[in-house]
Amino acid sequence: MVHDPRDLRAPPALAPGALVAVVAPASPFDREELLRGLAWLRTRYRLKVASSILSRTGYLAGDDDRRAAELASAFVDPEVSAVVFARGGYGTMRIVDRVPWSALDARPKWLVGFSDATALHVVANARGVATVHAPNVTGLGRSITPAERAALLACLERPDQRAAWRGLEVFRRGSASGPMIGGNLALVAAMAAAGRLVVPEGAILALEDVTERPYRIDRMLTSLRLGGHLARASGIVFGGFTQCDPGPDGVLASEVLRERTRDLGVPVVAGAPFGHGAPNQAFILGGCATIDDDVVSFDRLSN
Amino acid sequence: MVHDPRDLRAPPALAPGALVAVVAPASPFDREELLRGLAWLRTRYRLKVASSILSRTGYLAGDDDRRAAELASAFVDPEVSAVVFARGGYGTMRIVDRVPWSALDARPKWLVGFSDATALHVVANARGVATVHAPNVTGLGRSITPAERAALLACLERPDQRAAWRGLEVFRRGSASGPMIGGNLALVAAMAAAGRLVVPEGAILALEDVTERPYRIDRMLTSLRLGGHLARASGIVFGGFTQCDPGPDGVLASEVLRERTRDLGVPVVAGAPFGHGAPNQAFILGGCATIDDDVVSFDRLSN
Repeated sequence: MVHDPRDLRAPPALAPGALVAVVAPASPFDREELLRGLAWLRTRYRLKVASSILSRTGYLAGDDDRRAAELASAFVDPEVSAVVFARGGYGTMRIVDRVPWSALDARPKWLVGFSDATALHVVANARGVATVHAPNVTGLGRSITPAERAALLACLERPDQRAAWRGLEVFRRGSASGPMIGGNLALVAAMAAAGRLVVPEGAILALEDVTERPYRIDRMLTSLRLGGHLARASGIVFGGFTQCDPGPDGVLASEVLRERTRDLGVPVVAGAPFGHGAPNQAFILGGCATIDDDVVSFDRLSN
Repeated sequence: MVHDPRDLRAPPALAPGALVAVVAPASPFDREELLRGLAWLRTRYRLKVASSILSRTGYLAGDDDRRAAELASAFVDPEVSAVVFARGGYGTMRIVDRVPWSALDARPKWLVGFSDATALHVVANARGVATVHAPNVTGLGRSITPAERAALLACLERPDQRAAWRGLEVFRRGSASGPMIGGNLALVAAMAAAGRLVVPEGAILALEDVTERPYRIDRMLTSLRLGGHLARASGIVFGGFTQCDPGPDGVLASEVLRERTRDLGVPVVAGAPFGHGAPNQAFILGGCATIDDDVVSFDRLSN
């Protein structure tokens, strides 16, 4: 289960007209937002969407059986080249063990989304399959800039193309290269609690979050520190920490991010363009990335 | 590190006049509330309190050095028979590895508190040292009923006395006995993420929480399920889930607790009198407890 970058299986690049499955493994969402996101995706790809995707069961997009079956169907369908998540919220971890992962091993396909979908990124990356951290479909429906569209299409269609983020905030200067792992901090911590987080030695850890109080961000990072996960990282890239407002004590999320990584001795950058704020630029998880002072670059992926 | 109930080291019972250290490993607090709590404790015990306990550093009761030194001093002082926490909040995990645990192994003393202090309960119980889940000092200052006082004094002074909670809400009927482990669910999950949670086979898991949305409770319990922790429990005792109000989806915390434990095949009770609501009855963690339908009883501890 330990990821070795040399064993990375990059799913095949998509061509326009490829079949993309849209699935909802987490929380329900507004129908109109989904339709707007689907409309944009449909300008480029053929879509496979089950009508049951609009199910609502409390905070879940239908019960576990429905969501697991929908996701399994996307995994095993040989015509499907990418699986895009409708929305985050919560619920993916409930079904993470009910997915035929061996089908993904045998025939890698792109898993695309973020936030709660981090549960799937973590498992896929641990199995050596690269994934795409990108807006979910409802996010695509809300607002997406030309640059965000271009980044998403580049990940899916030209994963062998180099990409970079420049001019990031530098918490600690330096250079490091390694497999990019991570996503939503709360989900990364929850997957650690589940014993499923695999941070390979030398990994670059990408983390973002939303509506978490700074002391909670501290607690999650402290868990990952105690668990030895941060010590294995060769660098850390913080994305947006959106609406992570201070409590009455006035401590800022950015202070916590800086303080909790200060003594790790590795390069740390912040304000990278991904997360729950704007922009949310697509990038590849599981592939190799490099931090060089204020630049994060993503290596070519070939398959 | 694996706890075997036969290896349990129960700290010596306290006598009136014993020396009790009050420490603040987590968040700062109102001075008056501390003084009221100390006033009550002082009617029974001699107290050791550092003046630096009133320090404030953001959401912490002073920096890590201060809090770690204060806690270490209480651990190693041979005159101290019990260590009572001033308040929860957050911060204990930051210093959990900076405590001379071998001093506690060599000369067990009661650790007393709850909420953020769960980090210390988890480590102490994993080392086979029993602890007391009880209101923190500021909680003692706010309001404490005669029954809550009696329960706390009984744990400290007559741990060999049997105790029981009766008439609990039954989610699943049945009988089970095992070492009682747990505390605050968020801290239990965070300690699992840190790789420090030890749930011995057959344990009775006691869990409570405050101000967590039901979907977050689901996420934490799901982490513990995936991590195999719930499968090792022979029974579950839920305390208060205070201000864990539903989101717009209307799902109640109690529904989540019931649903996430339904298929474990072990007895589950809820509404036990501990947590962030009233009452918060002291009980012993690390010692053996028994669930028998709607009754939870605590075995005699001897040392």
